[in-house]
Amino acid sequence: MADQAVADFGLIGLAVMGQNLILNVADHGFTVCAYNRTTAKVDRFLENEAKGKSIVGAHSIQEFCAKLKRPRRIMLLVMAGKPVDDFIESLLPFLEKGDIIIDGGNSHFPDSNRRTQYLTGKGINFVGSGVSGGEEGARYGPSLMPGGNEEAWPHIKDIFQSISAKSDGEACCDWVGDEGAGHYVKMVHNGIEYGDMQLICEAYDILKRGLGLSSKEIGDVFAKWNTGVLDSFLIEITRDILYYNDNDGTPLVDKILDKAGQKGTGKWTAINALDLGMPVTLIGEAVFSRCLSALKDERGRACEILSGPTPKFEGDKQAFVDDLEQALYASKIISYAQGFMLIQNAAKEYNWKLNKPSIALMWRGGCIIRSVFLKDITNAYRNNPDLENLLFDDFFKKAINHAQNGWRNVISKTALWGIPAPAFSTALSFYDGYRSKNLPANLLQAQRDYFGAHTFRIKPENANETFPEGKDIHVNWTGRGGDVSASTYIA
Amino acid sequence: MADQAVADFGLIGLAVMGQNLILNVADHGFTVCAYNRTTAKVDRFLENEAKGKSIVGAHSIQEFCAKLKRPRRIMLLVMAGKPVDDFIESLLPFLEKGDIIIDGGNSHFPDSNRRTQYLTGKGINFVGSGVSGGEEGARYGPSLMPGGNEEAWPHIKDIFQSISAKSDGEACCDWVGDEGAGHYVKMVHNGIEYGDMQLICEAYDILKRGLGLSSKEIGDVFAKWNTGVLDSFLIEITRDILYYNDNDGTPLVDKILDKAGQKGTGKWTAINALDLGMPVTLIGEAVFSRCLSALKDERGRACEILSGPTPKFEGDKQAFVDDLEQALYASKIISYAQGFMLIQNAAKEYNWKLNKPSIALMWRGGCIIRSVFLKDITNAYRNNPDLENLLFDDFFKKAINHAQNGWRNVISKTALWGIPAPAFSTALSFYDGYRSKNLPANLLQAQRDYFGAHTFRIKPENANETFPEGKDIHVNWTGRGGDVSASTYIA
Repeated sequence: MADQAVADFGLIGLAVMGQNLILNVADHGFTVCAYNRTTAKVDRFLENEAKGKSIVGAHSIQEFCAKLKRPRRIMLLVMAGKPVDDFIESLLPFLEKGDIIIDGGNSHFPDSNRRTQYLTGKGINFVGSGVSGGEEGARYGPSLMPGGNEEAWPHIKDIFQSISAKSDGEACCDWVGDEGAGHYVKMVHNGIEYGDMQLICEAYDILKRGLGLSSKEIGDVFAKWNTGVLDSFLIEITRDILYYNDNDGTPLVDKILDKAGQKGTGKWTAINALDLGMPVTLIGEAVFSRCLSALKDERGRACEILSGPTPKFEGDKQAFVDDLEQALYASKIISYAQGFMLIQNAAKEYNWKLNKPSIALMWRGGCIIRSVFLKDITNAYRNNPDLENLLFDDFFKKAINHAQNGWRNVISKTALWGIPAPAFSTALSFYDGYRSKNLPANLLQAQRDYFGAHTFRIKPENANETFPEGKDIHVNWTGRGGDVSASTYIA
Repeated sequence: MADQAVADFGLIGLAVMGQNLILNVADHGFTVCAYNRTTAKVDRFLENEAKGKSIVGAHSIQEFCAKLKRPRRIMLLVMAGKPVDDFIESLLPFLEKGDIIIDGGNSHFPDSNRRTQYLTGKGINFVGSGVSGGEEGARYGPSLMPGGNEEAWPHIKDIFQSISAKSDGEACCDWVGDEGAGHYVKMVHNGIEYGDMQLICEAYDILKRGLGLSSKEIGDVFAKWNTGVLDSFLIEITRDILYYNDNDGTPLVDKILDKAGQKGTGKWTAINALDLGMPVTLIGEAVFSRCLSALKDERGRACEILSGPTPKFEGDKQAFVDDLEQALYASKIISYAQGFMLIQNAAKEYNWKLNKPSIALMWRGGCIIRSVFLKDITNAYRNNPDLENLLFDDFFKKAINHAQNGWRNVISKTALWGIPAPAFSTALSFYDGYRSKNLPANLLQAQRDYFGAHTFRIKPENANETFPEGKDIHVNWTGRGGDVSASTYIA
């Protein structure tokens, strides 16, 4: 049987991502074994895309496992959820200690935590790896974010770093951290992707409804932006999309139904942010914007009933487009700062060691949010791995300071024009809140103590004998309520 | 033993809410039995607040149950979570079929779903009831939102509607719906409460930092607002708080630490909104604002590093204060519209019958968000119980239309001044998005199809033979990618 073991790497799941990833691995000199539950797909793949390449196929899990060199390196690219667990169970009878199962799907990180623990108990090394870059990325260099059982890393590092995207000669793949850390970082990546896409959509909408530009003209704006600080994959494809004409010679984008779908990872990020108590507002607004877009029919009725101003642009259009570029840039800085705040907090909460410069580097190329911008983030964290907040980095501090006049102008105008800019606005609110030594939460705490005896604390600079620092204080605001504070609200 | 059964109602948990609720029930002619795990509290209560009233005590669960008339009506006012389950278990051996356990704590609605099912199986009727109004409300008339096993309702209706707040002669208590529906509606109430408080805080902050008013002057503004459309409990207590001076004769509120706490119900609402895909953005921003306030030390460092404009007010202050009143009013309308959108969707999702006019009525008095405004909402849903959206009601449509100029002016100014107004801003973005027949999600769908082959649909008005309506379409945007769409992304 041992002479059957010809493949360096095995992959299960021959949808577009799986096929492309196999071709990518084969291109880098490895032999890959392909398997799919519907085995007709294996044959079709071998006869077509895989023909003439170092790719073999299997028609059963047993055959698949027999064809893999030890330790077996098996990647699953199947639907997240039960299919992953089912394949793990069907693989187990044919595996040996030290073999490696890699889940490259969009699994939720708590599932990867669980699977790492479960398989460690069976002597199998589990890796949950984020994979980003879509079809193109999978084929020619994705961003890979592996985490899980670190013992697996030396055995897969070579393959992973070979096939991954490169940025300035460095692989956009490094070990992320324990358990579900790889899928966690991928989740935040996706949340940030939701944010980036929403920001671009708002800019597009403002150019369209605020300045009255055509799709072609907006394409020109994005083409120009793609040569500056916003240079990135998403800006580039937006340009391409805006230039893409239907058979009738008019822009296809104008005809696409404005109902956005979601696969859930943006939602997971927002929920995780709420759970960890981190103000990741931009991703939150991006997710809610998709929800609002989904209410297409209801919006159709609302637009007949609810009135608003008619946008009327006066002044220098180019100057406004430049302001909009700065608004997009500044909002993007906020979104990434919030994303890294979340990651930093998760590392504490879940007791994972996470390498921030590496995370930025992994996102630098291959993935959907790849950009020049991420090079600046990588630099910021390489200069100071203990950087408390991305906004404290000199480069970003200056960038946002330079951008803020344009940013403020755009939000001020869209509010008057009646064009929604939820992500731009929440980013600015966050910036202004974050740089506020004093927020109005003093009043909020007073309210909570007034109606619910929830107590408050005194500002250190106002502490005295009656109200010492750090003490939970309850005041009888009305002269009527009791002196029992809510901390005793337990039977 | 039967002659021991003297009490109409039993209550477990003698913290401030429990004590006050007992006194309230006793005031309405019912005999109440009080129990607390730490029984010394029972004695202290009987000797003090309860003295001379129709209140008896018990020193064990067995004694407590023996003292209750059949069917037993037992209310738990203990910490949400395990304590509720523990008390249920300790009660069960002493209960008979048809007895009623009411959980009046801040339980999460899925727990109440579970408990309803569990106890129904044992012949016990479970009620999960939202209770709002804080100390004062519990004592003199809370808002009560009971849901669960409807068989219990005839047996508790009399007591509940007697002790609850009244609004224009109607009890602010009615049966909400099945299973955890009562706690669900209470959860949304709390989320809306988070929103209302955040809106008030933003208005306070704008008056303070934008117009440079003192706490006393801001108190005067709130006093005046409390005579108009904003007339409500929270505006009233804000006035009181701003007028409340410390021993040294200066406003206490100025000295309170601006770090807000949360008990979790606001977060639950935001997470539920994300789960149900409903854009409840204002509550989301309110929760995140509390999270940001909690980063007090980090904000202290940020304010040294990050720059912004200095607010400089020019013009008619009173006119701006009037605009701010409209901004607060309009944002509040949006928040309640979002809250009812969520409730409406939950009723569908969880298959509950929910009575929208009753919900508004229950919030009309007694609870923290009680207001004149909720009378208008009650009217809107009484006029048309099938109202698709609160904003479609004639009264609110006109109100928001009248308010929007001031609202837009406030947001436009705060963006330029550098004062954070996340809740005001997200409300306006929602309004402008909701009344947009076309949102920029067409571009977003194109992006998703470009990089992930996620497919899109065509607008009905642009459908043709190549791109028929309702069909999932994938386009090869680059001329390079394959024709495999992501719907095949399954092994």
